[in-house]
Amino acid sequence: MKNFIYDIPTKVYFGKNEEENVGKYLKEFGAGKVLIHYGGHSAQRSGLLDKVRQSIKSEGIPFVELGGVRANPSIELVRKGVELAIKEKVDFVLAVGGGSVMDSSKAIAHGAANPGIDEWELQTKKVPFTKSLKKGCILTLAAAGSEMSDSCVISNDSVHQKKGINCPQNRMCFAIEDPCLTFSVPAYQTACGAVDITMHTLERFFNKGDHTELTDAIACSVMRENNRAAKICIEDPTNYEARATMMWASSLAHNDLTGLGRGKFLQLHQFEHALSALYPEIAHGAGLAALWPAWARYNMPYNTERWAQFAENVWGIKADANHQEEAASRAIDMQEAYYRSIGMPVTLRELSDRISQDDLVTLCDMVSENGNRILDGPKPLDRSDILAIFRNAY
Amino acid sequence: MKNFIYDIPTKVYFGKNEEENVGKYLKEFGAGKVLIHYGGHSAQRSGLLDKVRQSIKSEGIPFVELGGVRANPSIELVRKGVELAIKEKVDFVLAVGGGSVMDSSKAIAHGAANPGIDEWELQTKKVPFTKSLKKGCILTLAAAGSEMSDSCVISNDSVHQKKGINCPQNRMCFAIEDPCLTFSVPAYQTACGAVDITMHTLERFFNKGDHTELTDAIACSVMRENNRAAKICIEDPTNYEARATMMWASSLAHNDLTGLGRGKFLQLHQFEHALSALYPEIAHGAGLAALWPAWARYNMPYNTERWAQFAENVWGIKADANHQEEAASRAIDMQEAYYRSIGMPVTLRELSDRISQDDLVTLCDMVSENGNRILDGPKPLDRSDILAIFRNAY
Repeated sequence: MKNFIYDIPTKVYFGKNEEENVGKYLKEFGAGKVLIHYGGHSAQRSGLLDKVRQSIKSEGIPFVELGGVRANPSIELVRKGVELAIKEKVDFVLAVGGGSVMDSSKAIAHGAANPGIDEWELQTKKVPFTKSLKKGCILTLAAAGSEMSDSCVISNDSVHQKKGINCPQNRMCFAIEDPCLTFSVPAYQTACGAVDITMHTLERFFNKGDHTELTDAIACSVMRENNRAAKICIEDPTNYEARATMMWASSLAHNDLTGLGRGKFLQLHQFEHALSALYPEIAHGAGLAALWPAWARYNMPYNTERWAQFAENVWGIKADANHQEEAASRAIDMQEAYYRSIGMPVTLRELSDRISQDDLVTLCDMVSENGNRILDGPKPLDRSDILAIFRNAY
Repeated sequence: MKNFIYDIPTKVYFGKNEEENVGKYLKEFGAGKVLIHYGGHSAQRSGLLDKVRQSIKSEGIPFVELGGVRANPSIELVRKGVELAIKEKVDFVLAVGGGSVMDSSKAIAHGAANPGIDEWELQTKKVPFTKSLKKGCILTLAAAGSEMSDSCVISNDSVHQKKGINCPQNRMCFAIEDPCLTFSVPAYQTACGAVDITMHTLERFFNKGDHTELTDAIACSVMRENNRAAKICIEDPTNYEARATMMWASSLAHNDLTGLGRGKFLQLHQFEHALSALYPEIAHGAGLAALWPAWARYNMPYNTERWAQFAENVWGIKADANHQEEAASRAIDMQEAYYRSIGMPVTLRELSDRISQDDLVTLCDMVSENGNRILDGPKPLDRSDILAIFRNAY
């Protein structure tokens, strides 16, 4: 087991109607003026935004608003948000939405606390920073785990880049998680969320490391229960208990708990970031699902024992030492079939007819930074490995 | 699933030699003057205290010291500590030790921040309080989970009481967890720790609640891995990985994670608190082990389905709906046999020859507060239930 630091300060208010207390919680965390940040019209239509405004007003906390966050949130809107936050002297950013809204909120909080530094310089770590505004969220989608993670991913279309940054400043002060707010999430988005949740933990699980049995058991619990619950959510969208399981799995899968004592690098995510940088219309979870089987089968021979553990503890396939490869293969088949069963693409061709075979080299160059970058892992991936995986995924 | 608040702010520095950074961490948490609090001579003899002093000195932070914490820490020493902390204008209490030292440190921190209020009034919730000094710990025993819990238990011999209080003020700012510091823990204390760890999670698991599948899977992971690791620690005391698993299990078992969405009441712990209030020489874990089989067998018929889940996920005993009771009984037998195998008593008679049959009524009166208190749970326990359990445990 590697040494680790556990530092997950986000306070979670989990359960029915907790969003009605947002004003109270903002007050507890000392918010002076709030920027409410959100996405499209659904938060408005559902009445959620009105509830939020009402709750904040009732505590006498002033606020401004900025909507319009898209999937794969853009640096352009972040810049707008920073300008607004500085002009309005905001000291707290409240995200009302899913991963895109949360990440956009984080980037705005960083930019507003570091005026004069370009937001993309912060996001790409060219300028290190320690300050950020306080932030919190009301979660409306179980997927990204941004509500408890130290991660923030932003896209810059002008340079076809999608970049993530991990730092303590990315942690939310609080997360309000009411599973009822996800009842209206369509089946496709629910499935995308399920993939993202499992991958956050699965990619940690397949990092370098050994003797992390307790972490591993927790990781497999999250993957297994998330698989189980997501299926129910798709068949029965207003099933509170299943929505609650997915929501809590989303938070635990990416807050670090499921990888403590191991490496933390998310190898497969690097592939998907290139993909949705090139095609911003692609849903992150669907992109991961389309890439996953090829990535898994490519890695398995280099890490067979670990894949056999995954087979046993996520899919219930026990195998003795002589049959680990067989069990591992079967588990990958089962996870792939499961994704198919919840309507996810399992190849790039299924994902989007815009992706051509010629794009694969471009994607490979993006991930490998023209051959200058090797992706760390039990099987480190160089340019040729990366290209092979993209081709196998096609 | 019940609504819940997740609020576990303790920052954990986990791994080899982390204790050498204690000065740096104290500085990060803004310590102005520190009270180093510890138990007997072992921290001195092992050289740990010297390392701690050196690290704090090197950061230029002044400190005072108070040793002498015993098992089942006493309100008398807490009072001494409070006096010293106030006189010396201490603003941070650093516990170097196990559960007793940590709990004593917490009580001192509360008392010092609330001068003029008797420490036992705070501990017994007669005077509510919100202030406390900051606190941190260097853990030397995997057992109590006090390093991340919101719990603090103190004994008052003069009134034969042992009382616990749960509040956010009980959370440590940081916990330094170096598994190497537990290499020298004798087999008996290691086993006592293993019992305490499992019981913190097991008692949460058997609280009222439903549809907490993800929490349950994590809870069973902690119990299973703790059982496995403790056996190794006893056979091979310097096994780093097993010591690390026990240490991390100790923190997770009692920080709330393993019970989220369920009730939190620790039913069996109430029995043991009476026991070690009457006999302060009894080790808490051994007391729990001696009481556990009788408590488990008494509860099982009222919560059979849940016990069958425990059987499957902790002891690998699968059973269909018609054989749940059989599986549950077998699992209780196995956990009992396991405790015997690691040298733990499984009856009160085995625990101590000072306990007479006449004491059982006294103990029952203490737990049931002379019949005025019912212990909440799937089977609520009144005076007659409590007496029956004590008698069955004899």
